[in-house]
Amino acid sequence: MTDGRVPNARGEATRRRMLDAATAEFAQHGIAGARVDRIVAAARSNKAQLYDYFGSKDELFDTVFAASIERIMDVVPISAGDLADWAVRLYDEYLDRPDLIRLATWARLERRPAGHLMIDADRVDAVKLEAIAGAQARGDVIEGEPFDVMAMVIAMSMAWSPVSNVYAASRDEAAAEHDRRRAFLKRTVERAVSPDPG
Amino acid sequence: MTDGRVPNARGEATRRRMLDAATAEFAQHGIAGARVDRIVAAARSNKAQLYDYFGSKDELFDTVFAASIERIMDVVPISAGDLADWAVRLYDEYLDRPDLIRLATWARLERRPAGHLMIDADRVDAVKLEAIAGAQARGDVIEGEPFDVMAMVIAMSMAWSPVSNVYAASRDEAAAEHDRRRAFLKRTVERAVSPDPG
Repeated sequence: MTDGRVPNARGEATRRRMLDAATAEFAQHGIAGARVDRIVAAARSNKAQLYDYFGSKDELFDTVFAASIERIMDVVPISAGDLADWAVRLYDEYLDRPDLIRLATWARLERRPAGHLMIDADRVDAVKLEAIAGAQARGDVIEGEPFDVMAMVIAMSMAWSPVSNVYAASRDEAAAEHDRRRAFLKRTVERAVSPDPG
Repeated sequence: MTDGRVPNARGEATRRRMLDAATAEFAQHGIAGARVDRIVAAARSNKAQLYDYFGSKDELFDTVFAASIERIMDVVPISAGDLADWAVRLYDEYLDRPDLIRLATWARLERRPAGHLMIDADRVDAVKLEAIAGAQARGDVIEGEPFDVMAMVIAMSMAWSPVSNVYAASRDEAAAEHDRRRAFLKRTVERAVSPDPG
């Protein structure tokens, strides 16, 4: 809450409903297109309470987006010793939560047209970069900037993501489609990031 | 023109200005966020003429988006015998024309949340898929669905694109940054899509 008050249990439930409704609204319509009216209606609340909890529509987006990044890091932690497995787990996370990757892409289009998507990229990426550098030091991963390795594996995991410019996979498809893509993703990531021969 | 009249030279120049202004406006603000008022002001025209030429804001977007796809296919034709080179040329195209890949991503977010981004994907992809299938038949490219190979190479080319969820490269950066990424992209695509050993 912007004034530092701690919500009680009922307030916390309302705040939770607002976050869920805002996640759905921003994922669907983006930042400019999101309507606070729809969010408070879906959360059975009102604008005064929303602004009391989150400050503004932009700050509400910040909160929702930060939560989505934390979720992805928690649910799909990197395995630098097996980047192909990490990529496949990311593929499945996009199927489960297409809204989260849509949020990130709205943020890119509407807020940050160049450079790091995250303002606090150093913090967000630290664990991943350290894990990749460690795997490189052990000779398990291709040489190069750890950041480039990370960006490449994430890009590969997104080949059929909900924001792909080619084809967006979805849970509606037959399991065999997903299995074929997972196998191809695994093969190509393994080859792409395997250590240099020598 | 929606009524089938062919614009004269002056009309053609106006129509061209409208398309350029619309490309910039849609790339910046998306479909819902674009304002026809701004487009006609930038094109030194008026709404009546814009609707006469393009029908509606949505149809104007269709025209702009189709032109952007044609441009990418013309300027960056596939080289199935050297997919790594194609990926590097795509990397450079995104630096030259970040607006075009932004258009595609707005179309994904606002119009086509699942499946093919292009309604006429079969036509748009035909040349690329045939080229990849040919390279596979000659043993030059990894086995698998040609569509998956295409989606993967495009995804890799976009690792630092203007719509990346990690880092968006731009012409403002030092040449050495781009050279490092191009080299890494070339290495990783080569490894990812090289034919199976055996």
